Amino acid sequence: MEAELDCPIDTTTEKARNSIIVVASLVSKLHNLGGICRTSEIFNAELLVVSNLKVKDEMAFTGTSVTAEKWMPMREVKELDLIDYLTKMKADGYSLVGIEQATNSQSLDKFQFPKKALLLLGKEKEGIPASYLHLLDHIVEIPQFGVIRSLNVHVSASLILWEYTKQMVSAE
Amino acid sequence: MEAELDCPIDTTTEKARNSIIVVASLVSKLHNLGGICRTSEIFNAELLVVSNLKVKDEMAFTGTSVTAEKWMPMREVKELDLIDYLTKMKADGYSLVGIEQATNSQSLDKFQFPKKALLLLGKEKEGIPASYLHLLDHIVEIPQFGVIRSLNVHVSASLILWEYTKQMVSAE
Repeated sequence: MEAELDCPIDTTTEKARNSIIVVASLVSKLHNLGGICRTSEIFNAELLVVSNLKVKDEMAFTGTSVTAEKWMPMREVKELDLIDYLTKMKADGYSLVGIEQATNSQSLDKFQFPKKALLLLGKEKEGIPASYLHLLDHIVEIPQFGVIRSLNVHVSASLILWEYTKQMVSAE
Repeated sequence: MEAELDCPIDTTTEKARNSIIVVASLVSKLHNLGGICRTSEIFNAELLVVSNLKVKDEMAFTGTSVTAEKWMPMREVKELDLIDYLTKMKADGYSLVGIEQATNSQSLDKFQFPKKALLLLGKEKEGIPASYLHLLDHIVEIPQFGVIRSLNVHVSASLILWEYTKQMVSAE
C-alpha cells in the first residue's frame, strides 16, 4: 500500500481548493481525460488522478484540456494500484463516491455531498467494475430519461462537480 | 420570417418531452454537436436545432452522439436565419435563455427556469455574438473558479439541461 505514495505527483499551484478528488484512472479516452481536466480545474477540485501522467503530452488530451493541465494538480495511480489508493484515501477521511447506475444508488438531485469527497469515475463502456463497489461509501446515479443508456463520462463528472461545488458554496 | 418554416425538420419520435429547445446553430465542432445531441436526448429536450442536418452523416458527430440522433428530434436553422427563428419562437411563447458571461447575467445556481424555454448556445470561442443579446429574455452564467476562462459548450449545455430538468421534475 506504500507503493502508490511514490507515484509521480504534480501539484502545480498552491491555491485553496475544494476537498474533492476526481479519480479518472479507469477512464481511457484522451479527449474525455482532457475534458475532465478542464472541468476539474474550473470547479477548483483538489486533485485529478489519472492512470498515466504522460497523457498530458498527447494532443488528444491537450485539445480538450485547453492548458488546464498547467493549473490542475494531477497524480498518477495505475489501475493495478487503484484499490490500494482508494483504501488509503478512505482511511485519510475521504468519502468514496462512485457514479454508477446500481440498485442501491442514490439520485444526484437528492444527494448531499460529504465535504471531503473522492469521486470515482467508471470505464467508458462498462462503468465501475464490481470489484470496486464494496469499497464505495456512496453510489450516485444521474437520473436519465432518454433511449440512450448513459451520459458521457466527462458530462457525468461535470454534473457531479457542479452539484458538489454548488453545495459547498451555499454552505459557506 | 417564413423562410425557416421550410427548413428540414426531422421529428423521429412522438414521446412526451420537456418544453426546452436547444439551439446549437452557432456551435461548429462536430464532436460538440454530437455530444449535445446525446445529452439533449437523455434529458428529453423537445428539439435540437443545428445549422445543418447533414452533420448526422459525419463520423465526428456520430462518434459522440452514439445514435442519439435516431431518437432526438432535430431541425435545421442556418445562422443567417437564426434571428428570425428566435423572434418567431419568442412570439410562440418560448423564453429565450442564453448562456454567456455578461454584466447582466444571472447565476445558474439561483436561476429559475421558465417551463417553455429556448436555450441559445454560443460559438466555441466567441460565445454569443452581441447582435443576439438584445433578443434574449435571460442570460445565464455558470459560476467558475479556475484559471481557464470557460467551460466547454457541451458541458455548459449539459449543466443547463440538468438544472432545467431537475426543476421541472421537482415541480411535477
